[in-house]
Amino acid sequence: MIAILGATGYVGSHYLSYLRTRGIACEGLSRAELDYADFSTFLGWLKDRRPDFVINAAGYTGKPNVDACELNKAECLFGNAVLPGRIRQACEETKTPWGHVSSGCVFQGRPSDNLGWTEDDQPNFSFRSPPCSFYSGTKALGEEMLRGAANCYVWRLRVPFNHEDSNRNYLTKLLQYDRLLDVENSLSHLDDYVAATFACWEKQIPFGLYNVVNPGAVTTLQVVEWIKEAGLTAKEFSFFESEREFMQEAGRTPRSSCVLDSSKIIDAGVPLRPVEEACRDSLRRMAN
Amino acid sequence: MIAILGATGYVGSHYLSYLRTRGIACEGLSRAELDYADFSTFLGWLKDRRPDFVINAAGYTGKPNVDACELNKAECLFGNAVLPGRIRQACEETKTPWGHVSSGCVFQGRPSDNLGWTEDDQPNFSFRSPPCSFYSGTKALGEEMLRGAANCYVWRLRVPFNHEDSNRNYLTKLLQYDRLLDVENSLSHLDDYVAATFACWEKQIPFGLYNVVNPGAVTTLQVVEWIKEAGLTAKEFSFFESEREFMQEAGRTPRSSCVLDSSKIIDAGVPLRPVEEACRDSLRRMAN
Repeated sequence: MIAILGATGYVGSHYLSYLRTRGIACEGLSRAELDYADFSTFLGWLKDRRPDFVINAAGYTGKPNVDACELNKAECLFGNAVLPGRIRQACEETKTPWGHVSSGCVFQGRPSDNLGWTEDDQPNFSFRSPPCSFYSGTKALGEEMLRGAANCYVWRLRVPFNHEDSNRNYLTKLLQYDRLLDVENSLSHLDDYVAATFACWEKQIPFGLYNVVNPGAVTTLQVVEWIKEAGLTAKEFSFFESEREFMQEAGRTPRSSCVLDSSKIIDAGVPLRPVEEACRDSLRRMAN
Repeated sequence: MIAILGATGYVGSHYLSYLRTRGIACEGLSRAELDYADFSTFLGWLKDRRPDFVINAAGYTGKPNVDACELNKAECLFGNAVLPGRIRQACEETKTPWGHVSSGCVFQGRPSDNLGWTEDDQPNFSFRSPPCSFYSGTKALGEEMLRGAANCYVWRLRVPFNHEDSNRNYLTKLLQYDRLLDVENSLSHLDDYVAATFACWEKQIPFGLYNVVNPGAVTTLQVVEWIKEAGLTAKEFSFFESEREFMQEAGRTPRSSCVLDSSKIIDAGVPLRPVEEACRDSLRRMAN
């Protein structure tokens, strides 16, 4: 049985439907039902139910966006850093293999050699490498809590999207915002991410840290072109002139925009399609 | 009524006996009795009991020393950073004034102008200014959670000591360790700290951040001389040749050694005696 923590969230609910569709026994936990954030409660549950694998899709992301994390720092820190630390302890004590949904938001920009950041690079948008958003700081600290963890995957997600309308979907967001910031980013197609991360466990690739983004990078301007090509909107998009103008007028905390290298997971035998293909495919499906 | 959180701890128990000795109504809370680390539980308690002032002396320090924090990062982060954030929220919601026991361990060394670090200086031994111990990182993050908090004192304690034998007392530690590291430090006489911090509230000095150390600084070598003068031990103390040797042979994580400037609290009308006087007085009392 596969257990999903944070099963009512954007990512967790997709794991649940993916596993159900494939007919794999799974159980979704939400904190309202079982307070898995309490160490003893979760440890007891693990000993009782003995899941084969646990996926931690719980975390604090901030609604409607990352700015909200600046306003509820205690719960952001709790959900993104303390919680993975406690899950690690409980999973190590029961020898339960597990995977953690982390974030690529711990990086800014791309390395000078012009490829993406790899799993060997230290986060450069974190408490230890300021400035950063509070959200990114807590996610990087969450990864730090898992360093050296036994039987543990850490999977970096970055700007999730797919064809389904959702206020957490990057493409939906682009369609809704009045003004956009043109930046270059790696993206994770959510269904691709879910399938690829679960494949890590199924294929028994080595435990550890993986960037799980579709290969390549996109600029906001490029995605807006694809949105128009797909006939999704007739509106004229307007752009902030600079990140500085964006921060002055719209953002409370700096955003991470970054390019990640996903060759580690691909080389380990888990394929991911190029970001342009995933993106245009989603837009086509949204238009139909 | 004054409420003390962490009332069974080294600092909390001293607040409790100080207030009781003075005949001031107070209530000590420990998490075993009331889980004040749970936001709703604590909020309900505040609404019910309406304390005039709350002192948060709860925190995760690591036993026997700061190295233990590297092994239980989740609870260290929870106790030192998430907890103050939650207490802030509950106190702000109920308009309860309060004080937080922070730590001077968020600094290293002394500023180049040769005086101590002030409350205007940014911590230089923290996640945002690495390297640091995990403990110091969480204490600095705890202060960050309280930035801009309403009706809130943040009081930095640094290497507490007094005349009472305790494995948390700096002087007791010096007497017990096989080898010492000669560093320069500010210290807080525990009873002076408790009296001075409570005086902040009684005298209604402005809320905010205060270094609460006895003025001046000591070196380990100097304190060892005073220990010998007081006739507390006949043993020959031996010293590590360098911090590097200490880290290789004894320490798991770097220690903060620093000098803090306590003139802000003194200028606000709360006196503190010089560190040499406090230290030699404690040693004399230990010897009797």
